[in-house]
Amino acid sequence: MDGFPNERAVTERIGIVAGGGSLPMIVAKAARERGMDPIFARFSDGITNGSIEGPSRAFTWGEVGDAIEWLRREKVTKLVMCGTISSRPDFRSVLPSLRTLASLPAMFAITRGGDDSMLRKGSRFLEGKGFELLPVQEIAPRLLAPEGLLTSRAPNDAERAALRKAHRAAVTLGALDAGQAVVASNERIIAMEGIEGTRDMMQRVAELRAVRKIGRAEKLALVKALKPGQDQRFDLPSIGIMTIEEAVAAGITSIGVSALGSLIIGFEDVLDAANRAGIALTGLSTNDVQDGARA
Amino acid sequence: MDGFPNERAVTERIGIVAGGGSLPMIVAKAARERGMDPIFARFSDGITNGSIEGPSRAFTWGEVGDAIEWLRREKVTKLVMCGTISSRPDFRSVLPSLRTLASLPAMFAITRGGDDSMLRKGSRFLEGKGFELLPVQEIAPRLLAPEGLLTSRAPNDAERAALRKAHRAAVTLGALDAGQAVVASNERIIAMEGIEGTRDMMQRVAELRAVRKIGRAEKLALVKALKPGQDQRFDLPSIGIMTIEEAVAAGITSIGVSALGSLIIGFEDVLDAANRAGIALTGLSTNDVQDGARA
Repeated sequence: MDGFPNERAVTERIGIVAGGGSLPMIVAKAARERGMDPIFARFSDGITNGSIEGPSRAFTWGEVGDAIEWLRREKVTKLVMCGTISSRPDFRSVLPSLRTLASLPAMFAITRGGDDSMLRKGSRFLEGKGFELLPVQEIAPRLLAPEGLLTSRAPNDAERAALRKAHRAAVTLGALDAGQAVVASNERIIAMEGIEGTRDMMQRVAELRAVRKIGRAEKLALVKALKPGQDQRFDLPSIGIMTIEEAVAAGITSIGVSALGSLIIGFEDVLDAANRAGIALTGLSTNDVQDGARA
Repeated sequence: MDGFPNERAVTERIGIVAGGGSLPMIVAKAARERGMDPIFARFSDGITNGSIEGPSRAFTWGEVGDAIEWLRREKVTKLVMCGTISSRPDFRSVLPSLRTLASLPAMFAITRGGDDSMLRKGSRFLEGKGFELLPVQEIAPRLLAPEGLLTSRAPNDAERAALRKAHRAAVTLGALDAGQAVVASNERIIAMEGIEGTRDMMQRVAELRAVRKIGRAEKLALVKALKPGQDQRFDLPSIGIMTIEEAVAAGITSIGVSALGSLIIGFEDVLDAANRAGIALTGLSTNDVQDGARA
């Protein structure tokens, strides 16, 4: 609302269910450019997210009922979920508020399953409460990774083979609703993302290289891919400037992301960092799993 | 040879390509019981393996040629490979001995690919040098995991569902020639083994639990499974007493291994430890992927 006081009557409210990182503010900015008036419900990493500016309230997982009440009172009908959530809601071990209590059986059911399953069920719950859920890319379409080569350097033959291997494995993992990210060389699969997240997985790869379990000449590729049949409204695979730094530390020389099915957060900065590090970054199409990563 | 001097003429030599852990000595004991005379070629973790007793020589990866020469001189025609190898041979960064030099192009080709691919190619190389490769289980069949429930406690419904989920994922991973081990709950896949090995993966799970990314009530299962189409002569999935200890630390309450396709090293000790910890241990048949883990 700050800076847009006069538009308040005409603008449409949008509730940003905000986690950590810069994405909530990027989405808020894009929403304002589209004439929407954002308000933040902070959860998990979002509670301490210093980058968030604007009307906001923080909620523990036990206060989901209060968040719903607050958003309704603030006349919010549309919601977008974005930002990192490093603590998965565990309704068995949190103290629910009175307003959450009635929804508790639904909450239990929601949190069963992999991330994609949880987000699907969570969204159905929120839709049942009268909210419309918008995908991040509908508000900020420029975040979507384009198809094809994005950096100045193209992957060489070995890197293309590594991208293919990692892409195929990532799609296979996705079908199991496990992780979204895989690191591979052209010879073998190095690491697969479980619930630890991409950052921890890349840290592991850096450690494996330090103890020489990965040879000096073995060039690695990171692929983050959309899960087959994933609900594209939530939790699209994403990379940012940190991903590039983590890739450099792990000795990764090429990165692939699902074209039009993943987010590049801070596009210009990410490309600058990748170009400076000599990393080849590619938007992979689904066909690349069969045909090989294009460059 | 020590302790069996008189049998030397009648017994058959067997070369144990020995890595770390207790398996090389278990195999040696079984070989002696079958009237064979074992000799150890120590590699990787086997070089410093204090449990190995008997005639042995240590070789770096650059001395593969010397190992072959030594084994031939010692009249070895049969080989068995066993024990942990934590450093994958990297012939690009080792200094090869003169005897290895001629085989170097073959070595390079062997070490390309996942573990199973490497072992297949390595065995073909050794067969080309005139050696016969025996599977561990041919010498020590009692190491093979039996089918069905092995511990006093059977997995409950949630644990059976977790075993099924982990088993299905492990077989899928195996088809990619990635890892052999997966940790899952009945709700989601937690961790998948890449090149870091089972121990590091379990350590990761313990850490994820410590930071509450795994809920207190979420019961976990570990499955180690044979890769589809895996050459059963090498690198069968295996568990030992350490696996049970690592499982306890990670909050894992049920373990499944491929029945007749995996090794239980120190059967009685493993069962004792599992029973004491209340862990349910099951030998899974391939059908269990479809039909659900039997108990």
